[in-house]
Amino acid sequence: MRSPSEYMERRNKKEINKRLKNIRLIVSDVDGVLTDGKICFDADGKEIKTFHVKDSFRTTIWLESGKSVLWFTGRKAVGTITRAKELGVDLVFKEDVKTGLFEYIKEKYRLEPEEVIYIGDDWNDLYYMQHFGLSATPADAQKENKKIADIITKTNGGYGVLAEIIETLMRAQNSWLPAVEKYLKKFIL
Amino acid sequence: MRSPSEYMERRNKKEINKRLKNIRLIVSDVDGVLTDGKICFDADGKEIKTFHVKDSFRTTIWLESGKSVLWFTGRKAVGTITRAKELGVDLVFKEDVKTGLFEYIKEKYRLEPEEVIYIGDDWNDLYYMQHFGLSATPADAQKENKKIADIITKTNGGYGVLAEIIETLMRAQNSWLPAVEKYLKKFIL
Amino acid sequence: MRSPSEYMERRNKKEINKRLKNIRLIVSDVDGVLTDGKICFDADGKEIKTFHVKDSFRTTIWLESGKSVLWFTGRKAVGTITRAKELGVDLVFKEDVKTGLFEYIKEKYRLEPEEVIYIGDDWNDLYYMQHFGLSATPADAQKENKKIADIITKTNGGYGVLAEIIETLMRAQNSWLPAVEKYLKKFIL
Amino acid sequence: MRSPSEYMERRNKKEINKRLKNIRLIVSDVDGVLTDGKICFDADGKEIKTFHVKDSFRTTIWLESGKSVLWFTGRKAVGTITRAKELGVDLVFKEDVKTGLFEYIKEKYRLEPEEVIYIGDDWNDLYYMQHFGLSATPADAQKENKKIADIITKTNGGYGVLAEIIETLMRAQNSWLPAVEKYLKKFIL
Repeated sequence: MRSPSEYMERRNKKEINKRLKNIRLIVSDVDGVLTDGKICFDADGKEIKTFHVKDSFRTTIWLESGKSVLWFTGRKAVGTITRAKELGVDLVFKEDVKTGLFEYIKEKYRLEPEEVIYIGDDWNDLYYMQHFGLSATPADAQKENKKIADIITKTNGGYGVLAEIIETLMRAQNSWLPAVEKYLKKFIL
Repeated sequence: MRSPSEYMERRNKKEINKRLKNIRLIVSDVDGVLTDGKICFDADGKEIKTFHVKDSFRTTIWLESGKSVLWFTGRKAVGTITRAKELGVDLVFKEDVKTGLFEYIKEKYRLEPEEVIYIGDDWNDLYYMQHFGLSATPADAQKENKKIADIITKTNGGYGVLAEIIETLMRAQNSWLPAVEKYLKKFIL
Repeated sequence: MRSPSEYMERRNKKEINKRLKNIRLIVSDVDGVLTDGKICFDADGKEIKTFHVKDSFRTTIWLESGKSVLWFTGRKAVGTITRAKELGVDLVFKEDVKTGLFEYIKEKYRLEPEEVIYIGDDWNDLYYMQHFGLSATPADAQKENKKIADIITKTNGGYGVLAEIIETLMRAQNSWLPAVEKYLKKFIL
Repeated sequence: MRSPSEYMERRNKKEINKRLKNIRLIVSDVDGVLTDGKICFDADGKEIKTFHVKDSFRTTIWLESGKSVLWFTGRKAVGTITRAKELGVDLVFKEDVKTGLFEYIKEKYRLEPEEVIYIGDDWNDLYYMQHFGLSATPADAQKENKKIADIITKTNGGYGVLAEIIETLMRAQNSWLPAVEKYLKKFIL
């Protein structure tokens, strides 16, 4: 097995563009990606979770185009479950992935690692960022994550990182404009 | 019916100034306009809602000048109800507008679309932004909303967007200075 | 009685410096001064209040130097009561000041308006800002308040506005350095 | 006993670099260092505490390298206890340190003051900052703390101050790269 530092290389632009076209599943860490990284406890020591409305609609059109989103986190907060349900995305907690994330994804989605982009902002995400088809990280992620990420979003964690990645993917896959057009029609009474 | 992208044109300045004078009702989306777009859940998965004190007094003088404000949202949070009551504004949830927003406004306020400005920051607001008399969007709204908005506020969502629109309307209607003067007199004991 | 706009004049620097020496009581609005102006509701519609640790120690040395602080607000939130108790400052709600604030202060503190500085950020503070000895307002206050304030703090509301005013007062009164010296000795075990 | 102002001198760079190598315990204030200094109360007047995910992993590798972290605060909030447990750091409340902090540390850790760095952002931290081996303070700390701190972090309070200090210490102690390498291996399934 190679040492972690050997993985520390970013793919080149051309390779990234090619890989963007194959992605069918977005796996995203929660804290620091979908949230701003603040860990907030109420008076009973239970978690208050804060997401952002900007991640909503792009998630919807990505799902409606037949693709998938899986939120992957070690922190079992009710707010995370509530928000995942609202958006219609899948959610799995680390402790419940007994066989490992790659095996879990293969079983659940019938997808190979090359068809997956992983978004993470911290050290526990580095391995996954290197071993899936593509990796992304927020503008304010740990420097170690920014060093190896294929894509660094313009957005900070908690302010629409997932939305930015979805638009990037759908534009690369030429599905962005038709999906937006189709979706906006729903709002016409 | 035209496709959504056909609506994507902003009115010219002169037309906007003319329309500002006719507005009698402000319809405002909640999340991302009256709040900063953060979606916050407590330990039971129920929503914590955060508004801004800067929206208070301008709302009051707008209402006292005989005009109306309607908050329009899909998210049924107790905090939104509480804040609307405090400010004395109307509030309606999307699911409760069975006949459509235009019909609802016509029945409740006896107003035509030209007498209404709609403030929204996200995709589900685009249609209303195009079909009421005027549209506004916060400085940090989705780029699609900023592209078509008649007015982009200097303020970000959650920091006094409604207040800025009210002042803009009242100045255009020449009711700003007398209303402020009258209102401030109340604070003289 | 003069109209509100007639009060809209700021005192000159020399007069302000003279008045700083006479202040014995700080009256401060809460929302937008001691907080950042966000109005936050939990899932039951009750208020969550957020103050800042930077206001703590300067409040203590001001009180220990024999002066007073009165928080004055219309919003009855438990968090405000809790924080006032922690800091040892006085707190009164607007609805409980039946005889008016000037009379209340005269009775409770035996102080004339000239011995009071009033800190406020919004329209309901304008009258008090004009009629007490001095007025202050946060850097991000309403423009109407900034126009008439004797002092505009460098600090935004909720980030230590009260602390900045206390240091300004104590330096003008030549009590700052001895009070700090005396206070810091308490932390020497 | 010297007066507080006599302690107000910062160590020189060379001395600081030497001392960095000897640190075995980090003592950190909570509010303003591990949090952004906001003091937040729920509707019952109980505290909501907000930490940052960026402090997590560097704390872990520091602890795994056989060193210690002690959080030291006067505010007994459940959230602080919960977060300390999550990270595996020690926590002690001021009122429970009957014999003084130096004695407490000597008994619990068998460490001399020279082996301790103290991180604090406010006046009640000044004495400790002067009397332990080294001192650090966040970028947005009180000016009095910044004046005497051996290290001013680039990070603001509540955004990874502890993490930055840990990396600084471990790099000075030449334990950073091996510890990171070892730690990241855990994430390789």
